[in-house]
Amino acid sequence: MSEIRILPDYNQITPLELETIFSPIKQEIRALEKWLRKWSDHSLPVIKIMSKKVMASPGKLIRPGLLLLVAKHLGYEAEDKIKLAATVEVIHTASLIHDDIIDNSTIRRGRKTAVLNFGPDFSLLLGDYLFIRSIGKSLSLSNKNLTLILTRVAEEMVEGEIEELSQSFNFDLTENQYYQIINKKTAGLFRATAELACYLARAKEKDKKSLISYGRYLGQTFQITDDLLDLIGNSTSTGKNKFSDLKEGRVTLPLILALKNLTPEEKKFWRSQLEKFKSEPAEVSPSAILSLMEKTGSLEQTFKKAEEKAKQAKKAAGQLADTIYRRSLLELVDFVLYRNK
Amino acid sequence: MSEIRILPDYNQITPLELETIFSPIKQEIRALEKWLRKWSDHSLPVIKIMSKKVMASPGKLIRPGLLLLVAKHLGYEAEDKIKLAATVEVIHTASLIHDDIIDNSTIRRGRKTAVLNFGPDFSLLLGDYLFIRSIGKSLSLSNKNLTLILTRVAEEMVEGEIEELSQSFNFDLTENQYYQIINKKTAGLFRATAELACYLARAKEKDKKSLISYGRYLGQTFQITDDLLDLIGNSTSTGKNKFSDLKEGRVTLPLILALKNLTPEEKKFWRSQLEKFKSEPAEVSPSAILSLMEKTGSLEQTFKKAEEKAKQAKKAAGQLADTIYRRSLLELVDFVLYRNK
Repeated sequence: MSEIRILPDYNQITPLELETIFSPIKQEIRALEKWLRKWSDHSLPVIKIMSKKVMASPGKLIRPGLLLLVAKHLGYEAEDKIKLAATVEVIHTASLIHDDIIDNSTIRRGRKTAVLNFGPDFSLLLGDYLFIRSIGKSLSLSNKNLTLILTRVAEEMVEGEIEELSQSFNFDLTENQYYQIINKKTAGLFRATAELACYLARAKEKDKKSLISYGRYLGQTFQITDDLLDLIGNSTSTGKNKFSDLKEGRVTLPLILALKNLTPEEKKFWRSQLEKFKSEPAEVSPSAILSLMEKTGSLEQTFKKAEEKAKQAKKAAGQLADTIYRRSLLELVDFVLYRNK
Repeated sequence: MSEIRILPDYNQITPLELETIFSPIKQEIRALEKWLRKWSDHSLPVIKIMSKKVMASPGKLIRPGLLLLVAKHLGYEAEDKIKLAATVEVIHTASLIHDDIIDNSTIRRGRKTAVLNFGPDFSLLLGDYLFIRSIGKSLSLSNKNLTLILTRVAEEMVEGEIEELSQSFNFDLTENQYYQIINKKTAGLFRATAELACYLARAKEKDKKSLISYGRYLGQTFQITDDLLDLIGNSTSTGKNKFSDLKEGRVTLPLILALKNLTPEEKKFWRSQLEKFKSEPAEVSPSAILSLMEKTGSLEQTFKKAEEKAKQAKKAAGQLADTIYRRSLLELVDFVLYRNK
């Protein structure tokens, strides 16, 4: 089944590459990568080995890139923004390591997950270590409010994960509940990343408001697109296991919208099919569910919702002064929306 | 097999009950318990339910009790010591929840573990939540150095766990390596707890030195005794699964000392027996290993080592001014050494 057929417009727009979008912060991204590579240099040998392996596939660096773009847009030049950006990335990484244990994921960023490489026990402790050390390291920054923002958002992310887990296989989940979950588990860190940069650069209240709003909408766009990619993405480009949401009973927007459009009888049938992912996963085919989404038009509807969030993100960024960094922030929205990984 | 037979002196000394030892801080302990009960009142409902269940069996409260005794000894009366003591207990609890996932433990503090009650996924996230929130909450205390001490010790605990895990089934582990591990995974938190109280109460350098030394030795006593209890304790009184160290391949002091006393042939035989806990656990009996320890005298030797650490702890506390709180600190050493739970 071709991915393009499902969402006709999906791949017609070719967003800029991240490298191009991040070109105004090229130097800072390089400094960040260097910082991440040596992040665990003073840790115990066994931790250093694990950290290096995890940091060797650093992902797209969207969150630290966002922090650096915002800081630069606000004219903030001091070095500590690199350290803060790295902290955001390490917290994100810790959260992914723990997520992958829960989902029993085998690939992430196109490579073996920590849980596959080191087993669940080491991965659990490595995630703990990265969470705690990143928060601890942030205390050496200028102001303890930065650490406060970091602990609050890390707590919020975990709350989102717990809420999501407690709603597994709840096919009555509403769109509203879905947004509550993704705001915590994903959009919170994008919002907080913008907030951290504003705090560092002592942004004016007006800019701060726009940037926090931009962060939240960008995060929502990111997660909705992520939910689509889990269904229609190509595992080789996403670098992640496919259909993990269906298999784990995570009720995401495409499924909520598909179920909404069914008759009570159809709904009953499909719910019983979806339930099977829990008890008899071999008995049910993800592609049958995908066909249902195609038929009901829920994939297009979901993409439209992501587009709306992207529009809102651009609108928020539009309130800012016109700089090369703002241009990158605008381009980043399209990258997040149209990405295939 | 009777527990008393193995260590003839083991139960002849009846230490004071914790309630008696903590009587000078009775009011503070009550305030602490209240604080712990309402710790998660503002969390999401699902987190509140889990937290309440975990906090409902709060354990012996040795660490927060230590903090309160030290603070009172130093004449510190302000309320925030309760909050700080609770933070120490919550960090300890988070660490136990994650340990129990790793060990697949079913009982703790005489009740079902979080991992048995809520499953590994929820328990993992609950542990994350407790770690992050306790550190975050500590930022509202007077000084960010308190948070720094907390993050450093939490990091150290995780390092100790990782180091221990990486040494599983390494029957060449030396006594020195064993101490390095328990200093990080256990004694660190006792030491840091004393340090936190000293920081709060602005202790004189001399008192601080004695109290930190006391904390470290008390923590070592605690862990060595814990390792003995895993072998010769009664599961009903310890409230934990028995022989979990042998089953998990954790090489603790009684085993190190037992192996030390063997001929090369005997050593080879017992190592192959111990290896079986990994591959064919049904083929090997923990009580055979226990008999070996009895025969080699390693249990008594281990107890003697714990006694030495206890003596050092008392010596350190002996440097302090004579107050009712110091008396409790001295009594606490005997409680930790002679405890059966």
